[in-house]
Formats: sequence, structure tokens, C-alpha cells
Amino acid sequence: MRFFAKNQGLPGAFYIIKEKIMLNISKKGKAMPESPIRKLVPFAEAARKRGVKIYPLNIGQPDIETPEIALNAVRNFEPNVVEYSHSAGMPSLRKKLVDYYKTVDIDVEADEIIVGAGASEALLFAFQTIMDAGDEVIIPEPFYANYNGFATNAGISVKPIFSSIDTGFALPPIEEFEKNITFKTKAILVCNPNNPTGYLYSKEELETLRDIVKKHNLFLISDEVYREFTYDGKKHYSAMHLDGIDKNVILIDSVSKRYSACGVRIGWMISKNKDVISTAMKFAQARLSPPTFGQVAAEAAVDTPDSYFEKVTKEYLARRDAVVEGINNIKDAFCPNPSGAFYVVAKLPIDDSDKFCQWLLEDFAYENQTVMLAPASGFYSTPGKGKDEVRISYVLKVEDLKASIKVLDEALKVYPGRR
Amino acid sequence: MRFFAKNQGLPGAFYIIKEKIMLNISKKGKAMPESPIRKLVPFAEAARKRGVKIYPLNIGQPDIETPEIALNAVRNFEPNVVEYSHSAGMPSLRKKLVDYYKTVDIDVEADEIIVGAGASEALLFAFQTIMDAGDEVIIPEPFYANYNGFATNAGISVKPIFSSIDTGFALPPIEEFEKNITFKTKAILVCNPNNPTGYLYSKEELETLRDIVKKHNLFLISDEVYREFTYDGKKHYSAMHLDGIDKNVILIDSVSKRYSACGVRIGWMISKNKDVISTAMKFAQARLSPPTFGQVAAEAAVDTPDSYFEKVTKEYLARRDAVVEGINNIKDAFCPNPSGAFYVVAKLPIDDSDKFCQWLLEDFAYENQTVMLAPASGFYSTPGKGKDEVRISYVLKVEDLKASIKVLDEALKVYPGRR
Repeated sequence: MRFFAKNQGLPGAFYIIKEKIMLNISKKGKAMPESPIRKLVPFAEAARKRGVKIYPLNIGQPDIETPEIALNAVRNFEPNVVEYSHSAGMPSLRKKLVDYYKTVDIDVEADEIIVGAGASEALLFAFQTIMDAGDEVIIPEPFYANYNGFATNAGISVKPIFSSIDTGFALPPIEEFEKNITFKTKAILVCNPNNPTGYLYSKEELETLRDIVKKHNLFLISDEVYREFTYDGKKHYSAMHLDGIDKNVILIDSVSKRYSACGVRIGWMISKNKDVISTAMKFAQARLSPPTFGQVAAEAAVDTPDSYFEKVTKEYLARRDAVVEGINNIKDAFCPNPSGAFYVVAKLPIDDSDKFCQWLLEDFAYENQTVMLAPASGFYSTPGKGKDEVRISYVLKVEDLKASIKVLDEALKVYPGRR
Repeated sequence: MRFFAKNQGLPGAFYIIKEKIMLNISKKGKAMPESPIRKLVPFAEAARKRGVKIYPLNIGQPDIETPEIALNAVRNFEPNVVEYSHSAGMPSLRKKLVDYYKTVDIDVEADEIIVGAGASEALLFAFQTIMDAGDEVIIPEPFYANYNGFATNAGISVKPIFSSIDTGFALPPIEEFEKNITFKTKAILVCNPNNPTGYLYSKEELETLRDIVKKHNLFLISDEVYREFTYDGKKHYSAMHLDGIDKNVILIDSVSKRYSACGVRIGWMISKNKDVISTAMKFAQARLSPPTFGQVAAEAAVDTPDSYFEKVTKEYLARRDAVVEGINNIKDAFCPNPSGAFYVVAKLPIDDSDKFCQWLLEDFAYENQTVMLAPASGFYSTPGKGKDEVRISYVLKVEDLKASIKVLDEALKVYPGRR
């Protein structure tokens, strides 16, 4: 037992207490959310052991091939020593990214970019650069579940603003944002095109966000890792296209989805705010450098020919259509038709999506097949929301998606918690 | 301007205040230390532009070749998609690490290992798993400067315990530890062999640490990334060799130094404490996975033949001898003769090592050459310590090291701040 003089709140009043200090994990560690996507894994493993075929529609791991040009750059790696790179990322990679952004009408300099081990690390740098423990970030929900983890990691609070499946998950009205701004609010975070909803924000919606962050001196963090995946002739409008908020915008980006290279772990943050960059650099320097091989792949990937994206986008579009049409043909189910990314959030006639997704793996099979879905509850921060919704990633071929929808339809016919 | 109801400390007394909220970076960001090693970089760049040859003795980037077996594994990467790996690291890599640990008499299981983007990320996982904001970790100083950055990142306080160059930086006496243990102390962190001192802790010193952590229910974080680099016939004794504190020990390790593969960014944490592993896993899952290519290299590297290490250790030993002997031959300079890693901390007859290291780059050259050293002040957490000490990394060939020592000797003869 340790004995300490402890101030119990009254000035001057110290007294000795005995305290049994145990070998405990941290409160933060206890508060860290479990991945809503990965928590079903043991049930899937058990199902596979029983010989059931599972269609994995729960994850953001595309089946699309990584461009040959990126793989070959790594296969042809010549140096004899794998050295640390610059803490902000290899200058040659950052120069290449500057060229890439020119092609999407975004004007940035190499020293406005800090490369991280995935967009995950870049977003953590951004969070910690602009927010302290107790500060608040506003995020339209449903949102990418790991934002909760990064927020807990950085000790900050997520203030969700509800966006509804009935509007296809459009940006909530400006009043909803303003109602939630306190003196602790430091930033608004959007993901565009959106994971998990696939929603592509319009130019007008972006301009609304600009007006809010300008008026209230907030940062606007824009996660645009799905930028290339837009459909129906719609074009992506970036937070970096907005005028007058150069100092407010922090762009988060990555090669993971764009080039189907999730495992290279290369993402980055961009800011034209010099204080943001010089501060984020201190976090980057502490961990020395991002992965060298991944950077080599990423640099080469920028030269991926347009034909790759044309093919990939066409494929995703066919998949989206198969999923959206398929779900809307299921009795009492509803799926918006989003214009971006490779996810949809669908509404199903069920009591509880967590229970339903587990039941699909534990207790159901149709012709010895089942589907693995992500319960949408994990993408909401407000308790109770998303209970009748699931996220579906369309990362399988059209015929497999069609088979999956058939399985889902049959499952809903017999699910005991059907509503 | 934003208007808020704010409690000014007296219960019940709320009143409306106007507050101009600016677009500021965080307090944490401001508190993040700059890298003491990298802050001299602009001066080195300027010197190089003037045509001065610089011997870089300031960094931990070895010139030793990465084992061919590791490079070839990446060059032969076959999959067409670079996928996310398991959040804890590829099972095949972790199995291989289990085999590696058998060779150094450490008995671990694959599910006791969590792989990170370098030991840096693994250490951050460990810090956050066991400590909350305001908690304290005791570290003998001088210590690896980036521990300060990771502590600031996690919001925890470093309590340094002074180890003296006069004892060659041996472990401070047990009373020094106990004097610094408060109810907020959660862990002791040691680096063994030590960066920056090169000191190799003895079995007896490790047992002292065991007694302390056992008595006070503390975690013992042991950073052993230099395990293979020991000299003078001395053997490395690991924290995992200690009996009776299985739940307390968290081992930090990496391939960066062992296989001269710093850029692959693969390190890991090991714990036999299931609560620690399951909590750290939540941090690992939030960022999805460690780099795939780096893991491929790391897995192959474990099969590096012993002859590689015999050659490398022999080379480092010759370098250490050249540096230690060289410095001790300089008038009024002193260098202990450490038995591990590839660093020494030397005492020089100077007023201020920060000034001296900058002066070497800005105002000095001998036969158009100079040396780049790391001021030891950056490795102390107590202000004012290490002002007459520098860290030297012996990561250059013996002849270059000898030339560097000559330059240093000449510099000390004319340095205006000589004492």
C-alpha cells in the first residue's frame, strides 16, 4: 500500500490516506470503443468452421487489384538500407502528390503535406494539433466508426449531428450545427464522399460548412479518401475548393482506397495554416517517419493511368446498382441511392442490427451461405440510433452481391426479431 | 464572437460572457517538444551549401546494410492486392517472432504480441493502455528524447531520475525511485541497452527494478530494441527474464536497429497481461493495421543468419573503441565505455552543448569538415542537465569516426565557450 498526502478539495486541507494501488489499465483504455466491424469476427470464424460460405459485406477492403505500377515500384526497390524517410514523408512523394492535386484543381505545396501511416495517423495528428482534452468536434452521424476511437485516443468529445436516411443522409441544416457549437467546439469533421453512407456532399453543402466555420472560427477537417469514387455524372467538390477559409481547412487523404492499397498504410494531412503544419510536424517527428516501402508504392501509384479509374468506377457503379436495387426489392427494406464511395446504409425491418448481424452468422444459413454486415449502430454516436440500419460495403463482384441480397432477403423472412 | 453561460468556479453562479474564440492550435501541440536531433538540420543544410563536409554523428540511422533476405522478401511480393493485415500484425510474422524470442530465452505466445508502425507506435499503445492524463512514468535520465514526445502526446508526466556519467549511467539507487513514486505513478520505463548512453543494465539492476515494481504495483516498460548489440562478452538480460512480474512487464521491440531496417516501421509490444493486450488491441484496431510490406520484410528478417550479427557486432565494437578512446584522448573530455547499443554520451569542456553543436555547424570547420552531434540536453528532462554533454552515434565507419574525433578535438581548441 502507498501512503500519500492528498488534497481533498478544501484549500490547505491535506491529510494522509492509504491507497491500495492496483496494476490497472487506464480509464482511456477502458473507454476506447471496440471496432463494431471486427467484433463479429469470432462468429464468422465459427460459421466458417461449420462449413458455411460467408459473403463479407462488412469491411472496407476492396477486392480491386492494386495498380501494377505501384506494386512494381516496391518489387524494384534498389537501396541496400531501408532508411528512415523525412518525418513529413519523402520529398519526392510529396512533390508527386502536389502534381496529383493539380489534376483535381487543388493547389497545394509539398511543405503543406504531412504523410502518416495511413489517414488514421494523419487524422490523429490533426486532432491533437488543434484540440485538447475536453474539446469538441462536430460530426454528422452516422460517421466512420473509428473517428470515435481517434477522439477517445486524443481525449476529445464527438458531438454528433443527426443526418437522416430519409434525406439520403444529406448535410443537416445549419441550425443543427449552430445549436451544437459551444466554447469548446474546435472543429467540424466531414467525410466526403461519406463512409458509411456513400453520400456525396454538394457544392452548396460545402459552402454552408464554409459559412459556419468562418463565422465561428472553427477548423474544417475534410476526409476525402473516397474522392475518386463518384457516380451518376456527379463531380466531387473538395473543402480545398472553398474560398476564404484557407487557414481553417485540414484535408485528410490516403492511397488506401483510391489505389486499393490499404496495406501500404500511407495517408496524409494537408493544411495551408503554417501553425497547424509546424505543430503537426512535432507529432510526426516524435515517431520518426512513415513507412518507406509504402511511400515508394504511393509515389508510383500517382502515375496510375486514368483507364484504371474508369474501369474501377464502372465496376463500382454496377455493384452499387445491384445492391441498391436488390435491397429496395426486399419487402419493407429501404436503401438510398448514394453517389459516392462504395458503401450504403440500408434500413431493414429488424429490431436490432447488432443482434441481427450476429444472428446471420450464428443461427442462419440459406443454401449453406450467409452474409456478414456491419450493424449501423456502430456508426452512430447517439445511443439507440441506427438500430434498424446496416452498412453494406460493395466490395464483391456483382454476381456475389446479387447472391448476398438473395441470402439477406431469405434471412429477413425468418429472422425472429423482424418488425 | 460566441456567447456562453459559464460557471466561474462558484457553485450556482452562471453568467453570460463574450469570448472571442480564435483559430488556435492546441495546448498539447504547443507543449510537444521539438526533436533535439532534428532542430540542427537547417544549420547542417546551410553548412553543406557552403561546401563543408559534415560527419553525421547525431542520428540513429545505421549505415549497415539491411539483410538481403528481408529486402528480397519485399522484392518478391506476390499478391495483386495490398490488403490490410490483422490489426495485431500478420499471424505469420507474430509466429516468427515467437521463434525469435525462443533463441533469446524468452517464452511468449503470438497473441501476446501487438505489431505497430515502429516501436514508436507500440510504445504509444502501451502508454495509453496503462496511463491517463496526469499519470506519471519514472524514467532514468538521460533518456531517448522522443519519450518526452510520446508522454506529451498521451498527456502523461515524465518523472526523471538522474543517472550520472560518473557511474557510466548505471541504474540510480532504489531510494531514488521510491522517493519519486506517488499515487499517480503507473510505470517505470527503461531502455536496455540504453539510448543515448549505451549502458547495458546488469541482471542485478533488473532485479532491483523487479522488486520496485512488485512492491508498488507498477508496470515495467522495457525498451529493448538494441538487444543484439552488446560488447565485451556481456549478455543482455531482458525484463522478460525476470520471475514473478509477468503481469507488470511490457516489452517494446523493433526490427529497425536489429536489422538496420528503420524505414520499414515495424515494432511491437509484448505483454503477458491479458487486460493490457485486449486494451491495446482497441487502439490497434482503430488504426486498422500496421504496414504490410514492412511486415513482410520483418518476417523474413528473423531468418537472418547469425554470421550477419557477428559481423555487425564486430564492426560496432571497433567503432565504439575508436570513439571512446578518441574522446578520452581529448584534453578535458570524458567518455564512459558502455557495453551496448551504438551510442555514447560524452562530457566535453563546453559551456552549453546546444550552442556548441550549432557553432560546429555555423561557425567552425577544420580542413573544410565539421561534425554534427546531438546536444545531450535534449535527452534530459530536468532543465539545465546535460549542458556539457553530447550524444554520439557511432553509425559511421571507423576511419570516418577517427576523422570526426580529430575535427572535434580541433573544434574544442578554438570554441569560444570552452570552459
